[in-house]
Amino acid sequence: MKKYTSVDDISNLNEILQAAKEIKLNPLANKQLGKDKTIGLIFFNSSLRTRLSTQKAAQNLGMRCMVMNLNTEGWTLEFEDGVIMNGSASEHIKEAAPVISQYCDIIAIRSFPTLKNKEKDEAETVISSFVKYASVPVISLEGATEHPLQALADALTIEEYKKSDRPKVVLSWAPHPKALPQSVPNSFVKMMKKMDVDFIITHPESYELNPKITEGVKIEYNQEEAFKNADFIYAKNWSNYIDYGKITNQDSNWTVGKKQMNLTRNAKFMHCLPVRRNVIVTDEILDGDSSIVIPEANNRIYSAQVIITKILEEFKK
Amino acid sequence: MKKYTSVDDISNLNEILQAAKEIKLNPLANKQLGKDKTIGLIFFNSSLRTRLSTQKAAQNLGMRCMVMNLNTEGWTLEFEDGVIMNGSASEHIKEAAPVISQYCDIIAIRSFPTLKNKEKDEAETVISSFVKYASVPVISLEGATEHPLQALADALTIEEYKKSDRPKVVLSWAPHPKALPQSVPNSFVKMMKKMDVDFIITHPESYELNPKITEGVKIEYNQEEAFKNADFIYAKNWSNYIDYGKITNQDSNWTVGKKQMNLTRNAKFMHCLPVRRNVIVTDEILDGDSSIVIPEANNRIYSAQVIITKILEEFKK
Amino acid sequence: MKKYTSVDDISNLNEILQAAKEIKLNPLANKQLGKDKTIGLIFFNSSLRTRLSTQKAAQNLGMRCMVMNLNTEGWTLEFEDGVIMNGSASEHIKEAAPVISQYCDIIAIRSFPTLKNKEKDEAETVISSFVKYASVPVISLEGATEHPLQALADALTIEEYKKSDRPKVVLSWAPHPKALPQSVPNSFVKMMKKMDVDFIITHPESYELNPKITEGVKIEYNQEEAFKNADFIYAKNWSNYIDYGKITNQDSNWTVGKKQMNLTRNAKFMHCLPVRRNVIVTDEILDGDSSIVIPEANNRIYSAQVIITKILEEFKK
Repeated sequence: MKKYTSVDDISNLNEILQAAKEIKLNPLANKQLGKDKTIGLIFFNSSLRTRLSTQKAAQNLGMRCMVMNLNTEGWTLEFEDGVIMNGSASEHIKEAAPVISQYCDIIAIRSFPTLKNKEKDEAETVISSFVKYASVPVISLEGATEHPLQALADALTIEEYKKSDRPKVVLSWAPHPKALPQSVPNSFVKMMKKMDVDFIITHPESYELNPKITEGVKIEYNQEEAFKNADFIYAKNWSNYIDYGKITNQDSNWTVGKKQMNLTRNAKFMHCLPVRRNVIVTDEILDGDSSIVIPEANNRIYSAQVIITKILEEFKK
Repeated sequence: MKKYTSVDDISNLNEILQAAKEIKLNPLANKQLGKDKTIGLIFFNSSLRTRLSTQKAAQNLGMRCMVMNLNTEGWTLEFEDGVIMNGSASEHIKEAAPVISQYCDIIAIRSFPTLKNKEKDEAETVISSFVKYASVPVISLEGATEHPLQALADALTIEEYKKSDRPKVVLSWAPHPKALPQSVPNSFVKMMKKMDVDFIITHPESYELNPKITEGVKIEYNQEEAFKNADFIYAKNWSNYIDYGKITNQDSNWTVGKKQMNLTRNAKFMHCLPVRRNVIVTDEILDGDSSIVIPEANNRIYSAQVIITKILEEFKK
Repeated sequence: MKKYTSVDDISNLNEILQAAKEIKLNPLANKQLGKDKTIGLIFFNSSLRTRLSTQKAAQNLGMRCMVMNLNTEGWTLEFEDGVIMNGSASEHIKEAAPVISQYCDIIAIRSFPTLKNKEKDEAETVISSFVKYASVPVISLEGATEHPLQALADALTIEEYKKSDRPKVVLSWAPHPKALPQSVPNSFVKMMKKMDVDFIITHPESYELNPKITEGVKIEYNQEEAFKNADFIYAKNWSNYIDYGKITNQDSNWTVGKKQMNLTRNAKFMHCLPVRRNVIVTDEILDGDSSIVIPEANNRIYSAQVIITKILEEFKK
């Protein structure tokens, strides 16, 4: 594997999931693989799980970590070509990425979308500029339109908890007071399309995700209908994609609770976290037996570790 | 030891102090104990000594450290039960603590008091919530009402510098321009009650600490009287506990200087640092032979290291 | 070597450069030298290259790194003697430096100038106070008036790219929208005076650097004249030294472009980075063959590593 910035970078999901399961059984087995190798974790935005689980994964592989909040600890970066840099940006990605590449064997980056400039967000300006100008492999710690490490952890979690060969998985939109990216649902949709699952998305009308991503996936506006016989409920808010970045619905009927979960086949409840209690999902569900959000977060270690492993193995070729 | 969030967690102080002295003689002797173990240092507030000395201690034990400023680098946490999370908090401690527990073998947390909500502060909302919801041992790097690692370093320092079996130790309130927590004096009082010392607290009237903590300790409003024949002077400001969190006295007569120190039995001067010169204590004292604030700060390494050692040893049982 | 806070601390440049070249050939050869030793990287200001390259260098030597943004993560420091500390500063350097010295074997510090108080800046208040009060070696990660690790990387770069025994090196002032320190040009000038180069500085009239530093160096106000037959062009902005810290010229004719570079002997273009494109230098030059800013930044690892090596070797004596 030469980069991991999108679920599309996975060519053989089964192999990756198998490798992740083996890593999980013995996380320190490959401690020599990353010896004297350095991963740079570059954050443009807040992070808890990703920050800690990726460090943990890298350290399990014997790597050295350098963590940096680029905006506050470094310099504001410019990503536009040909610009006269007499504004607020001090450094161009054309220098920053190759320079960091000389200090790190792998660069991992988190950069959220603007949610204002759809074109710029869809171009994945930050992540794709790093890919373009870095001379080392790049991992996305969540970009403007994808969160591929989360989706891989989700896939691993579904693998572990599924009770049938082809479980029914529902991605259910939920309300939220702030405008959130579509990156988690986008990557989740892409991942589900790679898995042998009966997948359905439910959301209010006009909350369609990017149709290029959801192409071929069943969409059901009636949440209760969607939940029937489900094995996994994946709740997540996203801001409006059509009326880009806006909050056009805050209907608390979409908050996942006992009422909806009762329609399922004893479904497991999933969420990428952080989750707003009693807005996305009720306390009752999160604190009950159906919730697997904590082990799902645990799998963030192994999704990161399997990707880093695949990249490090590439170095040996 | 299963947690260390209060001086009360020490069941056998002599054993801990003895172990700390041995660690200090050979800090790297136990470098295998923490191998492949990870400590997460979570800061909600500023820290210099605690941040660096705890890292140092953990590294001396071969541990890996993950340091995080949770407020600025992660998400704002919610600690209330049952709340509809549509405000500023993105994540509930009920998720954050178990998630971090999966990435870290020990969680260490600094969280200062509000100094506005006495009830909330006395409940040690942040630290006790971590204890409640984490699945790994928790260490306080200073909570709302205690700073137990500081108190242990103080105890070790007194042990090292005492010239008699039962030295006289004075905790002396000092003025300060900002409202400060009572956590350092609280833990110091608790610690002194565990030691074989002649202990006395001196402060202006109405600056009483929590009477549950100072129960049985002599309080003397006359600073000069208190200083007589003292072997150790521990100066520290705290904000008013009765008129909670307020500054009701800024009397510079309480600033420790030559005049007061001359009343002592060549007492050593102690302070947890950071110390405001010529407010808490004069330059003359800090720069003179009686000050032991620098070796006291050095002992922060060994107080942290002995606690982490005791916790790591517990894992083996 | 007992400290490295100025180019003046180098007594034998050739030996240092030779050692740096050997380190670069095999960066991990000396991985035992720093074993169980800790370097503290203390930042008062932003940093990308310095932050990452110094960590990398220390890790190549087997050291443990503790990185800290002192202003935001620790306490505001006081550097004045005898002051009554009832203002914003919580801790005096007289405590901070010796305390940190107990936790770190080497302290490295970045502290930019005020650009308002010339006297204070020239006294290198922060760095020199650390040198004075620390009990361990101090490295400057850029002070108020010098950036000695950068200058050493620059010297190494010139050594690697020079095509003649005595290349012509031009330091060329360039415009910039913000007031920048003189530290990089100061250290560069000092370094060039130690090397066997034909060195010339070009800048607009009244943009003279500190004459004590540039003493004996040819200054040419006509940029085109200066560039003739040059082998290396080192572009850099600095704010006015005479009208201290002010921007008194923003003339874009000084922006280095094809026009000027054509006057040189196929000169290599250098800059310490971050560089503002099309303000300091045109895209055409930075993206062309003459630019060596990326390998120059790579040499930051080896300039840091050779200095840390020399300091660690001193410990053994």
